Amino acid sequence: MIRSTAALVLLAACGTAIADGPRARDLGVPFDGAPGPLNAITDVPGVTVGQVTLIEDLPDGRKVRTGVTAVLPRGRQSLDTPVYGAWFPLNGNGEMTGTAWLDESGQLEGPVMLTNTHSVGVVRDAVIAWRIRAGGPDASGYWWSLPVVAETWDGDLNDINGFHVRPEHAWRALDEASGGPVAEGNVGGGTGMICHEFKCGIGTASRRVVAGDQKYTLGALVQANYGRRDTLRIAGVPVGQDLPAGDTGGPHSDSGSIIVVLATDAPLLATQLKRVAKRAALALGRMGSFAGNGSGDIFIAFSTANAAAFTGRPLVESKSLGNDYLDPLFAAAVQATEEAIVNAMVAARDMHGQDGHFTPAMPHDRLVELLKRYGRYAPPP
Amino acid sequence: MIRSTAALVLLAACGTAIADGPRARDLGVPFDGAPGPLNAITDVPGVTVGQVTLIEDLPDGRKVRTGVTAVLPRGRQSLDTPVYGAWFPLNGNGEMTGTAWLDESGQLEGPVMLTNTHSVGVVRDAVIAWRIRAGGPDASGYWWSLPVVAETWDGDLNDINGFHVRPEHAWRALDEASGGPVAEGNVGGGTGMICHEFKCGIGTASRRVVAGDQKYTLGALVQANYGRRDTLRIAGVPVGQDLPAGDTGGPHSDSGSIIVVLATDAPLLATQLKRVAKRAALALGRMGSFAGNGSGDIFIAFSTANAAAFTGRPLVESKSLGNDYLDPLFAAAVQATEEAIVNAMVAARDMHGQDGHFTPAMPHDRLVELLKRYGRYAPPP
Amino acid sequence: MIRSTAALVLLAACGTAIADGPRARDLGVPFDGAPGPLNAITDVPGVTVGQVTLIEDLPDGRKVRTGVTAVLPRGRQSLDTPVYGAWFPLNGNGEMTGTAWLDESGQLEGPVMLTNTHSVGVVRDAVIAWRIRAGGPDASGYWWSLPVVAETWDGDLNDINGFHVRPEHAWRALDEASGGPVAEGNVGGGTGMICHEFKCGIGTASRRVVAGDQKYTLGALVQANYGRRDTLRIAGVPVGQDLPAGDTGGPHSDSGSIIVVLATDAPLLATQLKRVAKRAALALGRMGSFAGNGSGDIFIAFSTANAAAFTGRPLVESKSLGNDYLDPLFAAAVQATEEAIVNAMVAARDMHGQDGHFTPAMPHDRLVELLKRYGRYAPPP
Amino acid sequence: MIRSTAALVLLAACGTAIADGPRARDLGVPFDGAPGPLNAITDVPGVTVGQVTLIEDLPDGRKVRTGVTAVLPRGRQSLDTPVYGAWFPLNGNGEMTGTAWLDESGQLEGPVMLTNTHSVGVVRDAVIAWRIRAGGPDASGYWWSLPVVAETWDGDLNDINGFHVRPEHAWRALDEASGGPVAEGNVGGGTGMICHEFKCGIGTASRRVVAGDQKYTLGALVQANYGRRDTLRIAGVPVGQDLPAGDTGGPHSDSGSIIVVLATDAPLLATQLKRVAKRAALALGRMGSFAGNGSGDIFIAFSTANAAAFTGRPLVESKSLGNDYLDPLFAAAVQATEEAIVNAMVAARDMHGQDGHFTPAMPHDRLVELLKRYGRYAPPP
Repeated sequence: MIRSTAALVLLAACGTAIADGPRARDLGVPFDGAPGPLNAITDVPGVTVGQVTLIEDLPDGRKVRTGVTAVLPRGRQSLDTPVYGAWFPLNGNGEMTGTAWLDESGQLEGPVMLTNTHSVGVVRDAVIAWRIRAGGPDASGYWWSLPVVAETWDGDLNDINGFHVRPEHAWRALDEASGGPVAEGNVGGGTGMICHEFKCGIGTASRRVVAGDQKYTLGALVQANYGRRDTLRIAGVPVGQDLPAGDTGGPHSDSGSIIVVLATDAPLLATQLKRVAKRAALALGRMGSFAGNGSGDIFIAFSTANAAAFTGRPLVESKSLGNDYLDPLFAAAVQATEEAIVNAMVAARDMHGQDGHFTPAMPHDRLVELLKRYGRYAPPP
Repeated sequence: MIRSTAALVLLAACGTAIADGPRARDLGVPFDGAPGPLNAITDVPGVTVGQVTLIEDLPDGRKVRTGVTAVLPRGRQSLDTPVYGAWFPLNGNGEMTGTAWLDESGQLEGPVMLTNTHSVGVVRDAVIAWRIRAGGPDASGYWWSLPVVAETWDGDLNDINGFHVRPEHAWRALDEASGGPVAEGNVGGGTGMICHEFKCGIGTASRRVVAGDQKYTLGALVQANYGRRDTLRIAGVPVGQDLPAGDTGGPHSDSGSIIVVLATDAPLLATQLKRVAKRAALALGRMGSFAGNGSGDIFIAFSTANAAAFTGRPLVESKSLGNDYLDPLFAAAVQATEEAIVNAMVAARDMHGQDGHFTPAMPHDRLVELLKRYGRYAPPP
Repeated sequence: MIRSTAALVLLAACGTAIADGPRARDLGVPFDGAPGPLNAITDVPGVTVGQVTLIEDLPDGRKVRTGVTAVLPRGRQSLDTPVYGAWFPLNGNGEMTGTAWLDESGQLEGPVMLTNTHSVGVVRDAVIAWRIRAGGPDASGYWWSLPVVAETWDGDLNDINGFHVRPEHAWRALDEASGGPVAEGNVGGGTGMICHEFKCGIGTASRRVVAGDQKYTLGALVQANYGRRDTLRIAGVPVGQDLPAGDTGGPHSDSGSIIVVLATDAPLLATQLKRVAKRAALALGRMGSFAGNGSGDIFIAFSTANAAAFTGRPLVESKSLGNDYLDPLFAAAVQATEEAIVNAMVAARDMHGQDGHFTPAMPHDRLVELLKRYGRYAPPP
Repeated sequence: MIRSTAALVLLAACGTAIADGPRARDLGVPFDGAPGPLNAITDVPGVTVGQVTLIEDLPDGRKVRTGVTAVLPRGRQSLDTPVYGAWFPLNGNGEMTGTAWLDESGQLEGPVMLTNTHSVGVVRDAVIAWRIRAGGPDASGYWWSLPVVAETWDGDLNDINGFHVRPEHAWRALDEASGGPVAEGNVGGGTGMICHEFKCGIGTASRRVVAGDQKYTLGALVQANYGRRDTLRIAGVPVGQDLPAGDTGGPHSDSGSIIVVLATDAPLLATQLKRVAKRAALALGRMGSFAGNGSGDIFIAFSTANAAAFTGRPLVESKSLGNDYLDPLFAAAVQATEEAIVNAMVAARDMHGQDGHFTPAMPHDRLVELLKRYGRYAPPP
C-alpha cells in the first residue's frame, strides 16, 4: 500500500546478538534480585522481540534516527492466542493505543509495538494489515483491530516531522522477532531516545523469582526517553549531581517519556497485572524521576500463562497466584525495570542528529568512578 | 461497646417473606427477560439477605425511619470465602467503603451492607467486630478489615442526625440473613428512602439466562433513593409527565442516590464483574434518570462461582466465561436492575416522618391506568 | 507523502446543509428539552464539523463505504487553543487515541476525528501532519502530537481491509469543517455504519439550558453503529419488538459501537466534563442498549469556554459552574445524545455494500405508525 | 452519644511543639529541595493539624497504642469552605472513605482524618457529628456527609480489636488542630505504626518552590506503616541491607501501609492534584518500597488556593498553574514525601505493645554511620 523507501538504510533488524559493549552490571552497578540467563525480557519463555533501526543522513540534510520495536507475548502464537494484560499510566503525556480494550477485556491481543510519537498511526494500521495477511481470524473468531502501539518523542535527534517510519518497518520488526539476546541502546523504537540527558533507547532485564513454591520469570523492556540530569540516581548514587549536564555536553532537555513492557510466565489475571504494571513507577522513583509534566510514562504488563483460557470456548479455566503470593513479582517488576533503564543508558552510544543536535552517551568510566566513590561498586563476577 | 437501645421498636428483621401487596409485574408492568422463581437476588444460590428496619416516633418528636440491609454473597460461608467482585460509580456523590481493596484485589471479602449516610461508619466497624466474634481468620489468613458499606440519604423522613443505627442492628441483619423471599419497600436500609419523589426503598429482581450453553442466574437488589418525578419512565411510559409531583402531594426533592447490588452464579472474573456493574447505569437510563449531581449512584457486582479459588492456596484455578459470551448477563443486569427499582416503588407505602415530612407511595391504580393508556399493560398471568 | 487516489469519488457533504429528508422530530418522535436553532452540535458557538464521504464500487468488486468526520472544538482556533475535555468508555471495545493525555491534562488539543476501525492510524498521523503544515506551535509552545481519533467498525458494508481512508481525506475534513447544518446518516465516518440492525451513521442534536441563571448550549454528535434490533426503544416505544429484524431484511448483526461527542459553551472543568461524558450512557439506556461485549461505546465531552485559560501563561483563570448547578447540563447530555442517535437512524438510507451485504434504513412510516399506536406521537409544529 | 472513656490517658501532642529529638536532616540525611521554615505540612498557610495519642496499659493486660490525626486544609474555615482535591491509590489494601465524591466533585470537603484500620467508622461518623454541632450548613448549602478518613493497621502493637478510638478522640483532634510545629513519631494515628520493621508513625516535611515566577509551598504529612527491612534505602544508602532486621530485634513484619497527605498553596485544579498525589509513589520508590500486596498505599492532595471558588455561587473563577509549570511541584511532592517518611522513622521511639510485641526505633548512630560510610552524610548547618 505504501512503497518501500529503498533509500533508507535499515541498520540492524535485531533481536539477534547484540552490543559488544558492557551492560550495567558489567560496570559494577549493583542490583537486587537474580536475573535470568539472558537478563532480558526474552527470558520469559515464548516472548520474542523484533527491532528495525532507521539511521540515515538524507541528502537534504535531514537526519533519520528512529525505528520500531515489536514485543510478541507468545511469539508467532500471538497471532491466535491473546494473553492476560493490563496497563498503567504514571503520567499520560504519551500515547498507547488499544488501552480501552485492554482495560475492558483484561486481554492483550497481538504485539506491543514501540516507535516514535509521530509514527504511532502508521504502525497501528500496519499491525492490523499484518494480521490480515496472516490469514484467518484468531481463536476467538476476530481479526485484531485494536493494536497496542506506544511511543516516545525522538524529535530532538530525529527528523520526526518527516514521518520516516513506514508499514514495512513494522512488518519487518514483527516478522523477524525472535527470542534470544535483545539489542539495547540506539536501536528499534529507541534509536533516537534520550534519558536523564544522556543518550538512551531500548534496555531490558529480567528476574527469576519464587512465588508460592514455583519458579517464575519476569522480564522488562523499556524505551527510555525521560528525565532530567540533576535528579538521576543509579543504585542510590547521586550520579546526576556529580555528573551535571554541563559537564557532558549536549543540549539540555527535560521533555521525554518512558514506555515499560513487563512480561511474566507467572499465572496472573488482568487485575493482578495492573498491579505489576504500576510497580514500574517505583523503579522510576529509584532512578530519581519525578515524572515531569511532559513525560509519557506508560507501562504495560502481560502474562504468558493460561494459553488455554483463550481458545474461544465459552467456559475456560485460568490459573492464578493468590494475591498473598504476589510480592516477589512486585519486587521483580521494580528491580527489572530499574536495571533495564540503566542498561539502556549503558548500551547507548553518542549520537549526532537533526539540526546539529548531539547527545552524549553516559561515560562508563565516570559511572564506575562514582560507584566506587559512594561505596556501591559491585565487582562483576 | 455501644448499648442496645431497647426503646427502638425493631420492625421486621426480614429476608423472610413480606409484603402482601403486589409487585411490579402483578400490576401489569412489562419487563424483558425471564425471572428466577423468587424474582429476587436470593435466586442466586447461596446469597442471603438480612434486614433490620427501625421505625419509631421518639417522645421528643424525632422520627426514626431507617435501618440496615445486609447482603451476604455466600451466606455464612462469606465469613471464610470471598467472591470475585467489582464496583462502578456512575455518580460518586455517595459512600461505598472498601472499594480501594475491591479494585486492587478483585475480591469482595464479606458482606455488602446498606444503610443511611450518617451510619456508614458505625455499620463498618460493626462488621469488623462481627467478624472477630465469629473467631478465626478467613481462609487467606486474614480477618476482614475493609468492609463494604454503602448508603443513601434518608434525612428527609428520618432523623438522620440522631445517629439511630447501632452496631447491634448491623449484627442482627448479618445474623438473621437468609435465602428466600426478600422484603421490599420501606424496609432495612431502604426504610426512609424516596425515588422519583415517590416513597421507595429496597427492591429486588432476578433473571435466568443462558450463556455459552449453561444456565445462570443474575439477581439485583437496590436501595433506591434517586431521581426527579418529571423524568420518570416505567417500561417506556412517561409516568413522570403524566403523574406530576404536584398531583401526588409531598415535598419536592431531587437529592438522592441509588445503590445497586448485582449477584450472579455465572463464573466471572473481577474485570468482567466491573462490566456487569456498569450495566446498572443503562437501567437508570431506562427509568429516565440523568444521574443528578446530588446522587450517589454506585453499583457493585459479584460472582458466587469459583469458591475454590479462595482457599488461600498459592496457585488456584478459576473458571470464567469468555468475553464473547457475556451479552446475556449484560442484558440481565440491565433488566433486573430496572425491575428491582420499579419493585421498590411498587412495594413502598406512604410515610410520615421527620419535621412533618410526608412522602406518598406511587398510586398503583394510576400506574395501571397509564400502562393501559400507552399500550404497555401486560396482564399478569 | 501518500498520493491522492483520484479514482475515489469523494462525495463530501461537508458540514453544509444536507439531507432533504425529515429528522426524527419531523416524524413525530417526542423528545425532552429545548433544542438550539440547528438542533446540531454546531449550535455551540465555534464548533465546526467537516465530513468526507467515500462511496465507490471498485472495478474489482470491492465496495468502499466509509469516510472521516472531523469535529473542531474552536474551529480554526483549535490550531492554537485547546479546550477543557474528558472522556468516558462505557464499553471499551473500541479505540479512541489521545485519551491518556486527555485524562492527564484535562485538555483536548485539536480536533476529534471519527473514522472506521482500520483507519484510525492513518487519520491520527494525518492530524499531526496537518498541524505541522499549519506552521508554528500552539499557544503552549507545542505542536499537537497526541490527537484524538475514534472509530466504529464498518466492515459489514465497507471493504475495511482495503484501507481506503488516506491522509488527504482527513485533511479535507479538517480544511472544510464549518458551522451550520451538519450532514447526517450515511456520511463521513458514519457512511457504512449500522445500528439496531438499521442503516445508521452520523447524527446530531442540541439542547438549550439555563444553569445558574445563564443560558448555555450543549450539542451532541454521534457515530452510531451499535445494538441489536430486539432491544430498540424509541421514546419508550418498543420499536425493536414490533419491528423485528426479520421483517425488514438485511443481515443480523450484533457487533458495533458508538462514539458520542458532546460539546458545550458552559464553563466546565475537566472533572465536570467527565461527568457530562458519562451521561451519554443514560441515553443508550433509553434506546434499549445493554452495551454488548463487542461494542466500543466511548464518549468525549469538551467545553469551549475559558479560551483565555490556554494562552500558555503560567497562571491562568478559569470560570466554572458550581457542581450544584450541573443538572441541566447532565439532562441535556442525555437528551441530545438520545435525539442524535434517532436522527442518525432517521437520516440514514438503505445501503448495498461489500460482499453483497445490504442494510435497510428504518422505515419512516412504520416508525410513525408505532409512535401513534403507543400514544407517543408528537405532531411536528 | 458514646461516653468518654475516662480511664484512657490521653497523651495528646496536639500540633504543638514537639519531640526534643533530632529530625532526619539533623542526623545528616541529605535531601533535595528547600524546606519551609517548619519543614512541616503546616508551612502551607492555613493548614492545621490536631493529634490525639492513646497510650495505655489496661488492667486486663491489653495495650492501647493508637490515636487520631486530623489535617484541616483551611483550619476552622474548613467547616465552610472546601478545597480542590484528589487522591491516588498505589496499592489499595487500605481504606480511605469519601473518595467517590472526591473523584466526582474534585473537591475535598472538611478534614482528612487518620487512624487505625478498625476505627475508620467511628471517626467517620464522628466527623459528621462534629460538623452538625458546628451549626449551619457549609457555603454550598450542605452539611458534610462524606468525610475522608484513612487508616493503617496497628494491630501488632495496639489492641486493635478493642476498638479504643471513640468519637471524642476525633472531636478533640479536630478542636485542637493548630498551625505550627507538628508532632512526629509515636503520635496521633501513627502511635502504633511500624515501617521497614522500625518503629514509625507520623512524619512531615515541606518544600518551597518557584513555579511560573511565583513562590509556593508544598507540605507532606505521612502516617507510615509499610515496608520490609531489607529493601530500605535512605538517601540512596542501602540501610536495609546493612542493618538487617535480625540485628535490631523485634518481630519481622511485612504487612503495613502508608497514607500520604499532600497540601499546597499553589493554585491547582483537581485534575492536577491527582497528578501531585501520584508523585508520592516515586518517593516510596526512593525508599526502596515495592508496594507489597498487604500495603494500603493511598495518597491525597489538596490545594488551599481558590477559596473564592467555593462560595456556592453558580459561576465561579479558579486560578490554576498551566500544566507546563507543574514540574517544581511534582519534584517537591516526591522530596517532601521522602523526607516526611524518614522523619517519621527518626522521630519514633522504641515501643512495647500488645501480646508482648516490641518494635525498636531506628538507631540514630547506626544511620549516621551508614551515611558516612556511603559518602552521603550531609553535616547539619
